[in-house]
Amino acid sequence: MKNNFDTICIIGLGLIGGSIGLGLKKKKTKSKIVGYAKTKKTLTRAIERDLVDNIEENLNKAVEDADLVILATPLSTFKPIITEISPFLKKGSIVTDTGSAKHAVIEELKDLIPKDIEFIPGHPIAGTEESGPDSGFAELFENRWCILTPTKDNSKESINSIKSFWELLGSKVEIMDALHHDKVLAITSHIPHLIAFNIVGTANDLANVTDTEVVKYSAGGFRDFTRIAASDPKMWSDIFTYNSEAVLEMLDLFSNDLGKLKDSILNKDTKMLFSSFEKTRNVRKKIIDAGQD
Amino acid sequence: MKNNFDTICIIGLGLIGGSIGLGLKKKKTKSKIVGYAKTKKTLTRAIERDLVDNIEENLNKAVEDADLVILATPLSTFKPIITEISPFLKKGSIVTDTGSAKHAVIEELKDLIPKDIEFIPGHPIAGTEESGPDSGFAELFENRWCILTPTKDNSKESINSIKSFWELLGSKVEIMDALHHDKVLAITSHIPHLIAFNIVGTANDLANVTDTEVVKYSAGGFRDFTRIAASDPKMWSDIFTYNSEAVLEMLDLFSNDLGKLKDSILNKDTKMLFSSFEKTRNVRKKIIDAGQD
Repeated sequence: MKNNFDTICIIGLGLIGGSIGLGLKKKKTKSKIVGYAKTKKTLTRAIERDLVDNIEENLNKAVEDADLVILATPLSTFKPIITEISPFLKKGSIVTDTGSAKHAVIEELKDLIPKDIEFIPGHPIAGTEESGPDSGFAELFENRWCILTPTKDNSKESINSIKSFWELLGSKVEIMDALHHDKVLAITSHIPHLIAFNIVGTANDLANVTDTEVVKYSAGGFRDFTRIAASDPKMWSDIFTYNSEAVLEMLDLFSNDLGKLKDSILNKDTKMLFSSFEKTRNVRKKIIDAGQD
Repeated sequence: MKNNFDTICIIGLGLIGGSIGLGLKKKKTKSKIVGYAKTKKTLTRAIERDLVDNIEENLNKAVEDADLVILATPLSTFKPIITEISPFLKKGSIVTDTGSAKHAVIEELKDLIPKDIEFIPGHPIAGTEESGPDSGFAELFENRWCILTPTKDNSKESINSIKSFWELLGSKVEIMDALHHDKVLAITSHIPHLIAFNIVGTANDLANVTDTEVVKYSAGGFRDFTRIAASDPKMWSDIFTYNSEAVLEMLDLFSNDLGKLKDSILNKDTKMLFSSFEKTRNVRKKIIDAGQD
């Protein structure tokens, strides 16, 4: 299969960056894939696992021939990386990212991207709780959605190139307003992670239930939260910082609803609890029907 | 393999009751297994799936020959069932249950169980989000913990019989104080379910994000919560009513911790968020090491 980019540079070779490299290779793309990572350890594993064609220890050299540069690092690294690479970016190239928050990133980068380069913000809705250069796999994006949040500065042609790029990796692509993306992700991803991190923390700190008991009896529901709460702490502390507004908005709704359930428990109002729980059951069926299970 | 009971009566033939029947049959127990369920539909499916040896439409007849009676129905049904069957229970038989709350059940039933019958409270820590007569499977209890919370009225011999019964089904058995059980389960099972039910409810009611979007992008974390929130609403509204005290205690701790994370997000305190999330990562590893994944 073909894509429009002769040379692709992936910055960050963890779960997302590594899976992009492996996915492109699996599709036998003709593009040359260059990978950059901050540590020697990651670069060595990237070669051993054949995540990319070439590795490059120097960030500026990594991007200089690239027609497409992909930021696959935590959100807070985008600004320093773009600041560093912008003089070296190829004229007419495209920069995209894979970050989980979009509006704040667009605001932060808009004055740093050179005029002859297009930045097209993207976010593949795919992942596992694993991270690092050993965690990527070629099928990560297959049958998953990728959301692009282009701005008025982006050309139709460039948006379509990025769309084709993700479709090559097996994704379905949706175009969305950045602020709306941030609200959708706050409820479907960020709040679920926040409360998973939170309950695992609460359980850790209990005085009257031991850690061993929590682990032993985790099959009752807790273990599903620990999987989510094992996600990369750097990536997630950045997400909550960069999408704070939408997260706080959704968190207030969540807490308000939880207060109502608390009142029903206080009043032992079994009927009210039953009617709340009955409503939520159907959502599962819809997800299975949509192939997102 | 053998167990001490010539005739076993399972009341309720859903996920738990059905899995007990199938598990006993898989272990080629010599016990005769009688099953009771409220609806004709469930009884018909129980025969079709061979969950038990015999079905019985009349509750009193179902228990009259049983050496062991197992309550595998929602918590709120225990009192009316025991009230109805107590005159028909066989002298010297044992009654046990599979309910997720223990102290309130013991209090509610203690004056209803005849003097020559022992009630030994039990709780297998196993389950899926499925329910009904089609959901059970023989391996549900294998390598899972079952907690017994005997009272001072129980004999060592009877406790050991119930212990052997669960071991026959593949479970590991722990003896625990009922009030402590209720606290352990509040954090490892009840609060996880409560917040899963809650977030799915919050997402359902959003004005600015559509249901379709929530389903489409659920791979970012939300889908794991919908699985838990698809659990049986009757069973769960009963659990929160019967274990309200421990659930409210743990819910306050959870909400208090969530308030701290909220403050960190408000202040964009990435470092504080990072240090909170870093702590929770290790719990996952412990669960995998303990074989409870």
